[in-house]
Amino acid sequence: MEFANLKEAMLASSYHLNKRMDELLSIDGEDSKIMEAMRYSALSTGKRIRPFLLMAVANIFDYPTASCLDIACAIEFVHVYSLIHDDLPAMDNDDYRRGKLSNHKKFDEATAILAGDGLLTLAFEIIASTNEIKDNYIKIEMIKVLSNAIGYRGMVGGQMIDIENSSKVISKELIANIHRLKTGELFMASSELGAVIANASSSERKTIRFFANDLGLAFQIKDDILDHRGVDIGKTEIDEIAHKKPKKNTSIVDIIGLNNCEKQLVLLREQAKSHLKIFGQKAQLLNELTDYLLN
Amino acid sequence: MEFANLKEAMLASSYHLNKRMDELLSIDGEDSKIMEAMRYSALSTGKRIRPFLLMAVANIFDYPTASCLDIACAIEFVHVYSLIHDDLPAMDNDDYRRGKLSNHKKFDEATAILAGDGLLTLAFEIIASTNEIKDNYIKIEMIKVLSNAIGYRGMVGGQMIDIENSSKVISKELIANIHRLKTGELFMASSELGAVIANASSSERKTIRFFANDLGLAFQIKDDILDHRGVDIGKTEIDEIAHKKPKKNTSIVDIIGLNNCEKQLVLLREQAKSHLKIFGQKAQLLNELTDYLLN
Repeated sequence: MEFANLKEAMLASSYHLNKRMDELLSIDGEDSKIMEAMRYSALSTGKRIRPFLLMAVANIFDYPTASCLDIACAIEFVHVYSLIHDDLPAMDNDDYRRGKLSNHKKFDEATAILAGDGLLTLAFEIIASTNEIKDNYIKIEMIKVLSNAIGYRGMVGGQMIDIENSSKVISKELIANIHRLKTGELFMASSELGAVIANASSSERKTIRFFANDLGLAFQIKDDILDHRGVDIGKTEIDEIAHKKPKKNTSIVDIIGLNNCEKQLVLLREQAKSHLKIFGQKAQLLNELTDYLLN
Repeated sequence: MEFANLKEAMLASSYHLNKRMDELLSIDGEDSKIMEAMRYSALSTGKRIRPFLLMAVANIFDYPTASCLDIACAIEFVHVYSLIHDDLPAMDNDDYRRGKLSNHKKFDEATAILAGDGLLTLAFEIIASTNEIKDNYIKIEMIKVLSNAIGYRGMVGGQMIDIENSSKVISKELIANIHRLKTGELFMASSELGAVIANASSSERKTIRFFANDLGLAFQIKDDILDHRGVDIGKTEIDEIAHKKPKKNTSIVDIIGLNNCEKQLVLLREQAKSHLKIFGQKAQLLNELTDYLLN
């Protein structure tokens, strides 16, 4: 998997990723109900942004993207688990996801809760068990980075704060904090894991985190802008848009206005890319990805 | 923490365990709602059987129990997460747990789902981050054993099968399978981790697994016998017994009868202890624990 350009790279990595996810979800008990539900959500079409971030960062450090596949799947499984749980009636109560029924609508709430639990657990199992990585230190570093990013201090904590404030009018600082936790933390972890897998230095890891922090914030602002315009990134099905529950509390557009959001977006995009300058030509793929995600 | 007898050992380990759980749940964001909910369930009175199993097994291999505390906490957090999610309305719909309101009744469903997710994630974070263990190989082995035991093939898979069959009359083989997955897998993992932490040989690990398999089955039969008699192990509050939802499908007593259950219990207890003979006097604590849990 070496790439001539971004489009080819994304297509190739999606292909290999989907194939590997299918394999990882075929080991033992493919015919069980829980696995059916895990497969339903994990193997549905998605943009696979987070796994691709990992691969594009690993690419900077000349680490073969073909040897990131298991970790990339683990990251996507974590993302899918978070979507399944977030969609539950007790949370965001979304009936549609990625153009089809959300997990609890396709199955039922109990199944959706357990499928999420299963995917989260499987992510850690994959990192611990993968043959792609021989060095246990690297595996442990990965589990530290990931668990820290997605736990009560990170992604799950962000969802809690979001739910707590769902019917309140909140400050732009609190919105930014929710976005940082709910979206930014997994963006940062996905990117940092690309550096960890390649055994990058701690200063390189820090640089990648700075980049991913800006990227995540900008990505969320872009999502809010598109939401404001009635278009939902990657959610193209009529049904989904029609049924999308309005979220009162988390749009930065309502607070600082569309114009300021667009300025902020450009600022963050350039700031994100400026962190990558130190890597020169090696960061080309990641630079192109940044433009693609934010334009 | 070296022990003169079982009672003293259990008291001492509970004390140290509760103290350490409190510490681990005080790092960052103690005042957040999610942490409040995590603490509510994790720090409520529990028998701490699974962490104590780990410690009693480590004791066989002369591994200091004081150096098992973090891993013991991680195991208890996994157990608590499973209780919180199992109690949810979409699952077993239990209003009481350990003598007080279940997590979703004290808080709400969203909080309970997220608190469970947070505790599960924290368990893996603790194993990866603990300073108690220096050897990354041992940490990775632990994460493999634990994730395998509690994922879709294990504990979570068992809960799924249980829910799927909750209104059906099922065979004793299926009941046994549900028990093995829902209870047995975490019993086995907790015990095996006591061997892994002490760097025991693979044959010793296997022996401990055989022991824990029998113990887990026997423990579940005892639970069913006590349920049948209207007494719930460790659930002593009037409220909880009064409000306990009847479970149609999972009592082995209804199928093979009380008498046969009691015979089976004795058989499994002796079989469990027979596995420990190879460890001689060193297994005294674990032998006593087995008697305590099953008598």
